[in-house]
Amino acid sequence: MPDPTLPAEFALIARHFRPLAGPGALDLGDDAALLIPPPFRDLVLTVDAMVAGVHFLPDDPADLVGRKLLRVNLSDLAAKGATPLGYLMTVSVPRGTPDAWLAGFAAGLAADQAEFAITLLGGDTTSTPGPISLSLTAVGHVAPGRMVRRTGSRAGDGIWVTGTIGDGALGLAVAQGRLGDPTGHLLDRYRLPRPRLGVPIAGIASAGMDVSDGLVQDLGHLCRAARLGRAAGLQAEIEAALVPLSDAARAAGPDWLATCLTGGDDYELLLAVPPAREAALQQAAQAAGIPVTRIGSFRLGAPGVMVRDAGGQPISFDRPGWSHF
Amino acid sequence: MPDPTLPAEFALIARHFRPLAGPGALDLGDDAALLIPPPFRDLVLTVDAMVAGVHFLPDDPADLVGRKLLRVNLSDLAAKGATPLGYLMTVSVPRGTPDAWLAGFAAGLAADQAEFAITLLGGDTTSTPGPISLSLTAVGHVAPGRMVRRTGSRAGDGIWVTGTIGDGALGLAVAQGRLGDPTGHLLDRYRLPRPRLGVPIAGIASAGMDVSDGLVQDLGHLCRAARLGRAAGLQAEIEAALVPLSDAARAAGPDWLATCLTGGDDYELLLAVPPAREAALQQAAQAAGIPVTRIGSFRLGAPGVMVRDAGGQPISFDRPGWSHF
Repeated sequence: MPDPTLPAEFALIARHFRPLAGPGALDLGDDAALLIPPPFRDLVLTVDAMVAGVHFLPDDPADLVGRKLLRVNLSDLAAKGATPLGYLMTVSVPRGTPDAWLAGFAAGLAADQAEFAITLLGGDTTSTPGPISLSLTAVGHVAPGRMVRRTGSRAGDGIWVTGTIGDGALGLAVAQGRLGDPTGHLLDRYRLPRPRLGVPIAGIASAGMDVSDGLVQDLGHLCRAARLGRAAGLQAEIEAALVPLSDAARAAGPDWLATCLTGGDDYELLLAVPPAREAALQQAAQAAGIPVTRIGSFRLGAPGVMVRDAGGQPISFDRPGWSHF
Repeated sequence: MPDPTLPAEFALIARHFRPLAGPGALDLGDDAALLIPPPFRDLVLTVDAMVAGVHFLPDDPADLVGRKLLRVNLSDLAAKGATPLGYLMTVSVPRGTPDAWLAGFAAGLAADQAEFAITLLGGDTTSTPGPISLSLTAVGHVAPGRMVRRTGSRAGDGIWVTGTIGDGALGLAVAQGRLGDPTGHLLDRYRLPRPRLGVPIAGIASAGMDVSDGLVQDLGHLCRAARLGRAAGLQAEIEAALVPLSDAARAAGPDWLATCLTGGDDYELLLAVPPAREAALQQAAQAAGIPVTRIGSFRLGAPGVMVRDAGGQPISFDRPGWSHF
């Protein structure tokens, strides 16, 4: 029962968010959360913001918004080889936001907390005169010195991805009415990322990231991030025909291939793996039940991404990926 | 020089935020930050959101917005007895936000990073169709088991505050044109909180928090949070005449006393201190150059806050503090 002596803000937090709180959250009744870090582990921290009308559509189901907010951050932890510990969150909503929206949002988080074995550590709830604006900071841990960085790719490393590429971008096209989706697979992939936790890539991948802004653009990040000294750059060469597509993405036809390769919202892992460890990656992925596919390799050259078609010819794209500005 | 092959978002981050990045931030070029926690310390994490039109005024100077965003979180760490380590941040701004605004915002953060010896660990920059929306997650550390919580107040503890109370709330009235401010002190206090880091309250205070939503309301939180078992409640009794006011607040006159006691935005520490440790608090505060004042004490009773005037009569308030909803 809401305490009538307390402002409505506290009742809202007690009703929707306190059930999500773990031990370190101190019932969300304190100024800060307590986190006793696992001994002899490095911490990995990541944060993402999501704004209605930019990162999700105003009529997206609230539970899926909550799950997506959490999962995009868990995907970052997965790409660093980290195991999630917990998260903090800010929720800014217009006055008069239906209680059902907040209940749905919290229900989505609750479902995913159970799935990923994490809890809410703390947060802040405010009003806003604008659209719903959310942020989430996720904390994970990894063996000392073993965080998978973007900087470690080397010439000769294989380029690997998990799962399938392009479903998220096609799902956005479905949500916007630009593409059909008879099985519902594409829309589901757009609305609900699958963070690829569970593949122990720390110690296997020499570099990695998650594919969130488009495969070609994100692969370019790995090239530019590689620290090879002044004299050399790293070039990624991939074969379009090797990029794993779902049945639904294949059914969309070749006109949508560029969207798949540049569209973003995949939340698959993109990894650089030295030849000597490619078998270890395959075994680890198989044990986790997560498909992995080799789509190309790195070599010395002008930094950038070369995508070849089935005939070996380079494919060019109007834009390599997604930008906010 | 911006890399023409990268979207404007990356240039913006490189220009304004990369100079703020510390070692664990990996040049803001990775999916996540690396934090090697200090050995044998507990971590303390806190997050706050700030929205233009709610937490700051659209024409507030951008550098002060950045500093306030950081300082409200540092104030939470101070209230838990924690030493700051670093922070993560999300920045959602409308397309077309002047570059000068972002430059000013970053300059304010840079100044405070130097003052408080912390660095940026990571962040996320997005567009928004609404007002500027910010969030900041601060990480600090404290000796194991020594985080100052809201729950530890006991009957007989003295109630102490740092600095002066009410300047922030009066400063808001100044910004809104409802009150004069010949010295500029009140507006300055509203715009730029002073986090009370430096007083080693861990091991001294039995409970504590920062005063952000109004002294009376926040003191009520300490009463309700106290864990005394079912049979007893904790009541706070303070004397209005003991509450430390700045010269500028005194000059505003008695009509503004209620605003001082309930208005919020003080960012002073509110502490419960057992009699045997009150001298230790005074010594520690003196060493830190931070004034502390005893304004009352806790006793068993109906949970709540009793404020007495100079004649011993209870004062009642229309509202105990600030709520967003």
